[in-house]
Amino acid sequence: MRTSQFPLNTVKETPSDAEIASHKLMIRAGLIRKLAAGLYTWLPLGLRVMRKVEKITREEMEKAGALEVLMPALQPAELWQETGRWEQYGPELARLQDRHQRDFCLGPTHEEIITDLARHEIKSYKQLPIIYYQIQTKFRDEIRPRFGVMRSREFVMKDAYSFHLDQESLQETYQVMYQAYSNIFNRFGLQYRAVIADSGSIGGAVSHEFHVLAESGEDAIAFSTKSDYAANIEKAEALMPEGDRGPATESLNLVDTPDQHSIDEVSAFFGIAKSSCLKTLIVKGEEDELVALLLRGDHELNAIKAEKVFGIAAPLQLADEEQVLSACNAKPGSVGPFGLKIKIIADRSVVLMSDFVCGANQDGKHYRGVNWQRDIPLPDQIEDLRLVVEGDPSPDGEGTITIARGIEVGHIFQLGMKYSSAMKADIINEGGKNQTMIMGCYGIGISRIVAAAIEQNHDDNGIIWPAQLAPFQVALCPMNMHKSERLRVAAEKLYRELLDAGIEVLFDDRKVRAGFMFSDMELIGIPHRVVIGDRSLDSGMIEYRARTASESQELPMVELIPFLLQQLS
Amino acid sequence: MRTSQFPLNTVKETPSDAEIASHKLMIRAGLIRKLAAGLYTWLPLGLRVMRKVEKITREEMEKAGALEVLMPALQPAELWQETGRWEQYGPELARLQDRHQRDFCLGPTHEEIITDLARHEIKSYKQLPIIYYQIQTKFRDEIRPRFGVMRSREFVMKDAYSFHLDQESLQETYQVMYQAYSNIFNRFGLQYRAVIADSGSIGGAVSHEFHVLAESGEDAIAFSTKSDYAANIEKAEALMPEGDRGPATESLNLVDTPDQHSIDEVSAFFGIAKSSCLKTLIVKGEEDELVALLLRGDHELNAIKAEKVFGIAAPLQLADEEQVLSACNAKPGSVGPFGLKIKIIADRSVVLMSDFVCGANQDGKHYRGVNWQRDIPLPDQIEDLRLVVEGDPSPDGEGTITIARGIEVGHIFQLGMKYSSAMKADIINEGGKNQTMIMGCYGIGISRIVAAAIEQNHDDNGIIWPAQLAPFQVALCPMNMHKSERLRVAAEKLYRELLDAGIEVLFDDRKVRAGFMFSDMELIGIPHRVVIGDRSLDSGMIEYRARTASESQELPMVELIPFLLQQLS
Repeated sequence: MRTSQFPLNTVKETPSDAEIASHKLMIRAGLIRKLAAGLYTWLPLGLRVMRKVEKITREEMEKAGALEVLMPALQPAELWQETGRWEQYGPELARLQDRHQRDFCLGPTHEEIITDLARHEIKSYKQLPIIYYQIQTKFRDEIRPRFGVMRSREFVMKDAYSFHLDQESLQETYQVMYQAYSNIFNRFGLQYRAVIADSGSIGGAVSHEFHVLAESGEDAIAFSTKSDYAANIEKAEALMPEGDRGPATESLNLVDTPDQHSIDEVSAFFGIAKSSCLKTLIVKGEEDELVALLLRGDHELNAIKAEKVFGIAAPLQLADEEQVLSACNAKPGSVGPFGLKIKIIADRSVVLMSDFVCGANQDGKHYRGVNWQRDIPLPDQIEDLRLVVEGDPSPDGEGTITIARGIEVGHIFQLGMKYSSAMKADIINEGGKNQTMIMGCYGIGISRIVAAAIEQNHDDNGIIWPAQLAPFQVALCPMNMHKSERLRVAAEKLYRELLDAGIEVLFDDRKVRAGFMFSDMELIGIPHRVVIGDRSLDSGMIEYRARTASESQELPMVELIPFLLQQLS
Repeated sequence: MRTSQFPLNTVKETPSDAEIASHKLMIRAGLIRKLAAGLYTWLPLGLRVMRKVEKITREEMEKAGALEVLMPALQPAELWQETGRWEQYGPELARLQDRHQRDFCLGPTHEEIITDLARHEIKSYKQLPIIYYQIQTKFRDEIRPRFGVMRSREFVMKDAYSFHLDQESLQETYQVMYQAYSNIFNRFGLQYRAVIADSGSIGGAVSHEFHVLAESGEDAIAFSTKSDYAANIEKAEALMPEGDRGPATESLNLVDTPDQHSIDEVSAFFGIAKSSCLKTLIVKGEEDELVALLLRGDHELNAIKAEKVFGIAAPLQLADEEQVLSACNAKPGSVGPFGLKIKIIADRSVVLMSDFVCGANQDGKHYRGVNWQRDIPLPDQIEDLRLVVEGDPSPDGEGTITIARGIEVGHIFQLGMKYSSAMKADIINEGGKNQTMIMGCYGIGISRIVAAAIEQNHDDNGIIWPAQLAPFQVALCPMNMHKSERLRVAAEKLYRELLDAGIEVLFDDRKVRAGFMFSDMELIGIPHRVVIGDRSLDSGMIEYRARTASESQELPMVELIPFLLQQLS
């Protein structure tokens, strides 16, 4: 392709609403343009990248035996009412009425639609297992769309759904899809991790998220330093610490601590580590009563874990000041486990604390030198309530936890019968009896991957595309071609030879100076750059530079194409 | 592909709401399934066909120099308000509000969005001309969705838009697109015609529709028997008839014609041809006054033409009985041009009538033996008001008109400045001055083409795919393979050889009897069928049948692949 026929839409300005590198670079490199909040037009250069993401995904889905379908974006409310999601789904679900006042939504996902298809098309166990997939535009009415195509209101997804006779078949297909996802992300050339995930509102038991690693990622992922254990930090278990509780060496003291409320303030006031302070949070229980949660001062509550603990309300709700006052006789910041009449649930690490500081349930007072069993009884219930931190032992027993940030771009679930049961998606089993199908579902954020790839691969000069996602593999930059006819002829010849060698080349035939050309090609992230000038014609040498290299190198012109083919293979 | 891994979803039943062959066959052959009125899921077999339509279209668009983009389906109301279409567009426009109560629509077309893109991205005449296109899901809230994917509420379109400095450049690109469309429809292997069209509400001056010819087509197309003239019947001009008016031979008579109102009744009553009766229609004028339209009794009013005539209101509205009575002193069915106080506009052929019959403006009475100028003055205005009929002279002067039916699957327009002017899409021209861009737009109904291809190509047994659109080229049907191991081995080997030869083959490895296999393969329309049995292994002969042939033929097995490759080339 020539830039004269495939115009670049690079711009100097970064939009004021662009907070992260990929958003800025997608605008600057001319991959996308904003139409309205959370709505983007894909320009030719960006679409070339997205089509590569689609192609690789489609090929691996076909290899995994999945069948491509295309379901409507418009979904009738009736099906969502069958599963109860019409009511459960919040305002993210874009709803509309047709001209006859019938309710529809714009699909953010297609469980209801595929289950409706399956209950009509699949009659017998002989037709199972089956995997359907589609690559399609999805809608989500985000309250605050941001980060460009990373969290937009309209986006492209690959969603797949599998149907099974039994759990064993689901697990087999789940493994096949896990492998297909690994193949896909390997082919993208991205650093990624499959992490054990919380399955959230979609339901089901087992799920993995696929994260592209990037510093700007919204999700924290806990890895083992030794094994391949990886989990979303929301899901990573904090093991019961080994060893015994330290001995009580201090005596219990009630201390005036005026205006000392936070753990930071209290630990500084006493001159002790935060790990020697007890954090007490008052939250709602399952039946409107209050519950006290205890954590070590240096630990953070993991709300996802807490919500799954028996006795704690989901979603997690902190008690307000008035409720805390009436339950503890003190305001938040001075509360602690002493004399509480409500249930106390402590994190595992709390029971190993000794000689610690906690609120005294009197405003402006704390106890120090507190010791379990000597001063107060052990908590009513011990649970895993906290976020893991770097250095925690890995839950699989191998190595310790290290934490990195990731962008969720894929998610696979063992759904079970949540949808098939609600929608009566039955088949006749081998014994001639009705049986509800078991389901899995498998998503990949196609448009999001383009942004995630940039988030992971860029520098101050622009995007650095991994080979398989680059819109073009090679940039051919002639120097002042418009002033030299023999150069023009040679550059055109080289362009033709590169094309004939099967290389995707962008020939910059614009009448612009070299520096301008180079900075455009760096900005749009073409992996390989070839510069040809009048000098090349005299010397027979040509300048080559990889996008990742800091220096150019000279190559004999006759060796260029074999060299490039090797780089690309 | 094997039917065991690519299950066919053929069914015996035809849905009760399916009125036309393509709708019935798309359901029966398992190409689509209905989700709700006008909303269909594309099953794997149907999607394979649609992807071929997309691929051919994309290749020809690229050859024509068009740049692929992807615009959002959700479009903000503000842009539609700029062009006035937010108010003008009827309830076909699916509208919704986001969670912040901002108005959006689901795009049925993208003129506003592309014009907004162009006014931001295109600054200089040097960037012109440029053609953008996309292949994307569109929405139209049809009052009565019907005919399956032919008139659905969600469908796939290829829409393209071009921007130009001047009319000459637009016309050049229009010709390029006209040629690209011809290439596309030729490659589809469909019988089609490019017809001069009315450009309707999209506006602009010149436009052509591309019609796939089929008896069930909703549109009537007028062709010349001699030249390549073709026009939508709405647009085809009825020339001023040659020759002079016949002489007056009868005398004027007022005749009692009780209960004779329609042209059929009146011509039968008098025992004369319908072409000797005058049809008088009372319609609204441009400013609430009434106007009388005169047509020869055997001609039909062309409303599209009438609406463009000076003095007639658009849209065309017939006067109600009360209005007719007050203007003509008679009810509809007895009105005529005698003594009318309102403006009279006659079709061109009317002025050549002589000795004719018309209403007398007295209920239950007609005049016969009427002659212009002798009995009444010539009409106030002579216009082309009627639909052409078979045998009319072709408007280009070559041959006569013949009429066929077509399905509109493409439309190209010279839009002019309708959108660019309303949205101030200006550029700097060569002289350094601001200038409004000129636009063209070009649509193809991707999903509709699948249905139109079937409408044109089917028989009692099912679909007959043209080679380029067939989901598979060859059906390989082994006879009772599950009872013969040597046949299984031979069939698997042949399947592999066909694949290796680059042939898209569907290997029917189901354990079903031959008749069932054959009727499925005929229903889904695979162009070539190869049958292999134990007998083939003994005789070295194999059975081949084209989907279009009524008889099978025997071929030496060794010649099969060269034979098929020749058929496919």
